[in-house]
Formats: sequence, C-alpha cells, structure tokens
Amino acid sequence: MKLSKKNLDQRLDHLYDVIIVGGGMGGLSAAIYLQRYCLSCLIIEKGKGRSFWMQELRNYLGLPPETPGRDVIQHGQEHALMLGADHLRGFVEEVRDEGETFTVKVRVGKEDSIYPVFRSKYVIAASGIMDHLPKLEKMQNVFDFAGYNLHVCLICDGYEMADKQCGLFVGTEGAINTAFVLNWFTPYITVFTNGLFEVGDEMRHKLKEHGFPLVETPITQLLGHDHEMTGVELEDGKIIPLETGLVAMGSHYYNEYLKGLDLEWKGSNLVTDSMCRTSHPRLFAIGDLKEGINQVSIAVADGTLAATAIWRDIRRAAPPRRWEEHLVGENPMVETT
Amino acid sequence: MKLSKKNLDQRLDHLYDVIIVGGGMGGLSAAIYLQRYCLSCLIIEKGKGRSFWMQELRNYLGLPPETPGRDVIQHGQEHALMLGADHLRGFVEEVRDEGETFTVKVRVGKEDSIYPVFRSKYVIAASGIMDHLPKLEKMQNVFDFAGYNLHVCLICDGYEMADKQCGLFVGTEGAINTAFVLNWFTPYITVFTNGLFEVGDEMRHKLKEHGFPLVETPITQLLGHDHEMTGVELEDGKIIPLETGLVAMGSHYYNEYLKGLDLEWKGSNLVTDSMCRTSHPRLFAIGDLKEGINQVSIAVADGTLAATAIWRDIRRAAPPRRWEEHLVGENPMVETT
Repeated sequence: MKLSKKNLDQRLDHLYDVIIVGGGMGGLSAAIYLQRYCLSCLIIEKGKGRSFWMQELRNYLGLPPETPGRDVIQHGQEHALMLGADHLRGFVEEVRDEGETFTVKVRVGKEDSIYPVFRSKYVIAASGIMDHLPKLEKMQNVFDFAGYNLHVCLICDGYEMADKQCGLFVGTEGAINTAFVLNWFTPYITVFTNGLFEVGDEMRHKLKEHGFPLVETPITQLLGHDHEMTGVELEDGKIIPLETGLVAMGSHYYNEYLKGLDLEWKGSNLVTDSMCRTSHPRLFAIGDLKEGINQVSIAVADGTLAATAIWRDIRRAAPPRRWEEHLVGENPMVETT
Repeated sequence: MKLSKKNLDQRLDHLYDVIIVGGGMGGLSAAIYLQRYCLSCLIIEKGKGRSFWMQELRNYLGLPPETPGRDVIQHGQEHALMLGADHLRGFVEEVRDEGETFTVKVRVGKEDSIYPVFRSKYVIAASGIMDHLPKLEKMQNVFDFAGYNLHVCLICDGYEMADKQCGLFVGTEGAINTAFVLNWFTPYITVFTNGLFEVGDEMRHKLKEHGFPLVETPITQLLGHDHEMTGVELEDGKIIPLETGLVAMGSHYYNEYLKGLDLEWKGSNLVTDSMCRTSHPRLFAIGDLKEGINQVSIAVADGTLAATAIWRDIRRAAPPRRWEEHLVGENPMVETT
C-alpha cells in the first residue's frame, strides 16, 4: 500500500523481505517480481529520478516510442501496489547492516521531516544516477531543453541526432572523446567547454583533424522555444546555431546511503555478479548504479535477476510445505501415495 | 519493410549488418536498437513462438498485466519496421560462415516453398524454445488450456498457482524435482507421469514425505471449459480435480540451423559472454537460446546488449566522419578551429 507520514507507523515493526531503494524502472521491475514470488517489499522513492525526466522512451519493446518515462513509472507503481508492494515517498539517508537484517533510515517530508527506520532481510540499491547539466545563470533555460532535443544519452538518442548540427557540452577534456563516438551519428559536432577547463594541444589537434569546432567562450544562454534548442549564445555575443545537443558532463550517483557498508566499487559503480549481487551477499545493485549500459531495458532485467536471486536464497532456506495430514480430506489421491 | 515471396528479390544483393533469426521479444528488441544505431537488419520469424502463446504478460514493467504476448510482438514489429528494419516470415534452414560474412538460407512459404539466401556481417540467434506439452490423443484438448491456467513457467506463473491444487506434468524422473520448487507457492501438488517412465524408490519416498500424490496411470484427457482446466481424467476412469497445472517436460530448442558452426554449447543452450556474444565473434545468442532465466525482460535486455556490442564493433572499425571542407559554408565556427 502507499505509505506516508500518516500511516507508516503500521510498518515499523514489519520485517520486509526486501527494501528497494529507488522506484525507477529497475526498482519497480524488482518489486513486481518480488511480489509475484510471494515476498514482501517496500519501495522507497525520492521522486524525480532520471527516467522521470525522459520525455520519450523510444527503444523499449512494447511501448509506443513517444511514451514518457513518468508514465511508465506511474504505471509500474500501480502494478506493484496492486500486487501488494508498499511504496513510500522519501529519501534514504542510511542503510546499516545489523547482521541478519538491514535497517534503513528514511527522511520523509521536505518540511517537518520525520526519520522512520524500516527493517528488511535484503536491500536492492536501485537509486540510480542523475546527469550533470551545464551550469548557466538561469537553470530553467537548461531544463527547458534537457530531455527534449538536448540529450544526455548517446545510446538512447544518437539516432535522433543523426546528421544534425549538434552541440557537445563537456566539463572535462576526457569527455571531449564522446565526440569521436557521436561522430558515428553526425559529423557536424561543435564542442563547448563553457570555459570550464583548458584543452591540451593533442586534443585540439584531434578535433581539428575531424573538423569539429571547439568553443571555449563561456555560454550565456541556450536559445530556442517550445523545448526545441536552436543554438547557443556566448558571452562575447556570438550565436552558434544548433539543431540538437548532447550533454556529457558525468553524473551524480545516489549512493551516499551505502557508504557505511563494506562494498566493492569500480569508480562510482557497484561491482555485481551476473545476478546483480554486490560483494555483500544480501545487498543487490541494479540499473545505472551498477557497472554496465544505462538503459531502461537493462534496469528492468536487473530487477528480474535480483528478485530471482533473492527468492532462490529465501526459498532454499525455507522449510518444505507439506500437503498436511489434517488436510487429507482435500487430497484426492491420498490413498494412492 | 515487410518482405515476402513477391518482393524479397530486392534484398538478395544487400549485405545486412545483422540478420536476426527469430522475431520474438529478444529479436524485436535487438532490431529496434540496431536500427537506432543506424545499422541495417533483417528479422526472420517463423511465427507462433513461445511468447506468441503467452496469454498474459504479467511481469513486464510498463504493460498492463493482462497484455497478451502476441500484442507485444505485433507492436514491436511495427516499431522495428517504422525504424526501417526488414521483416520476413520464414524458417531459417542454415547459417553458414563465409569468413567475413554469413549466408542465411530461408524456407519461405509452406506450399511452393522457395529458398532464398540472405547475407549479413553478424547474426543474432533469437529463435528461442518451445515447451513440450503432454502428448494426449487430442492435442487440441491440451492447447485449450496451455498458457491459460495450465502453465509452462514457474517463475512467470508461480504466483497464479499460489495455494491452489496444482497438477505437475512431467516426462522424466528428474523433472519431478520441480515439485520441490513449486512447493514454495503451493503444497497441494499432484505429480502426473502419464505412464511415461518408472519412478525410483528414493523419489517415491521424497514425494510421500511431502504428501504429494504420484499418479502414474496414463491421462485420457484434461477436463475443463473456457480455457480453464478443472481436472484430469485417467485411463482407469478416475478423475483428479485440479485448479491449475504446471508442465515441466523440457523444451524444443530452435537451434538446428546453427549446427554447422563451431560453437560452444552447454547442453542445448549457447554459451555467451556478458554481451550475449557466443564463442563465434560475429554470432550472438539472446533470450531462451542462451543460458539464464527464460523471461521476457531478460530477452529484451539481451537484445539491447547484443545490438550494442555489434554497433561498437562496426563503429570502431569505421573511418571517422569529418566535418568536410566542402561543407565549411555550413560550419559556423570554422574560423575558430
């Protein structure tokens, strides 16, 4: 059921099989599977994750290409609730390993926050990432285009950028290398550093070889209307026309709540096995938080894998359910056994 | 575009980037990704695969739980065609490795069959499996219930069988062990051998311990109406009432066309790496054909992985696309480079 400040007290004594941190694509898929394995789970969702911002989910089998991410999330929430999952809007502050169980401390409510602690046997970390966007004076100017024709994912949206004049927005020299992958889709690439860092001679040479302009003057604003970016205005007043853009400025990883646990990391990603199990046997990581490709289809499959691995653990440790003698009246074949 | 006997001649000289054998969930997902990577692909689909028979797809994020498998396939076909994929109804007879390319021989048409040969750089084997069903005198009697309340997948449908009187239909002694997993969902399990094999003493004892009746008399027919199985009638005239059933009789693997290639197998499954690449560097296997869990979500993610790995191969081998000098008129920043 949907939990809130008003009714969450009812669940403070409950030992969940699984608490899922993050109610995006991976977390919701895990919840659907867990409930269908007759396990109990609580999804804790802070809101407005990466998939919430997706305007069109163009590459997920079964849904029309224009389906917004938030529709899938809404639909998945209803699906999980219908199956008996609990769902709470809140921000997970800390996960602690108490030996046989985890405690999960949540901040609920932006004002007059309360800090309930829930308990579970397993935790699935499905809290994902959020892409860094160019920092301009008016951030609303960036939000107006991000997720529309200002993209953050080359795999998702390279196709939309094909043969278009594309701005590549970067925050480090290393990220400029994205241009040589984006190049598969379009050769009309202009790289914008927004004055954030110095570009070395080797990279300048490589860009020149490809014919990709490098713009180091800080950006004043993105130009456009109706969520369609049409160019960039620089501090010196110059205007660069664009038809599309790709932001490659790294991501924030929502993993702070895991920092007290002894886990194996690869950079900001959690290292997992083929079933999404981390180096902690009762903690799983799915979706963008783990190593691999950041795609909805992958996160959804990860949810399947983690839920299945947890079910196998719990099932194998459970005693057999006999067709009990006192029920023999219902057993039509008891005389043949 | 949709290919048929009438127009497939147009594609016989075309070298596809990828031919996908099987247009189920995995194959269609791969096609959507490949086309969005600006690669060309042909899907060859024999029709009536495992997912086509699924009456309700209850555990796939984003779709209502009552969505039939064939709706997803229909929708995915339209999605792939819209993106420029080719789709042919036919049965792949043989895949041959010609060094740099594959040739794929297809039988098209049940009557007056023709045998065109298509060419591609890569092949994705997505032809899946088909579950064996109990062989009764009238197979239509089995088809009436299969995919409704006579299930073939414990992971998909254990939830639907929870605490119900369930018939477990097996063809080997080893398959009886499915009862001790199904047992998580319900203790009311009756095992039917249909007289196909002898059951050893150890297994008899184990079943007795669990209170699970063992029925070795051959089955005459399944009872029920409106796709709802309500019991089994035996040769001796006895009737066993049931509320649901699970078939665990193994599967047919559609992999005959690969037998001429030197591939690594594990039983009937193809061994693949984390990107679904087989031991042949240009041949991928996705979905039920490879090792792992047979789930729609997994097949869809496999399609993502295989398509991405192929794209990376092809992209890395491709020459860079320069913003050419003769286009400088369109390059607004050419004076700054």
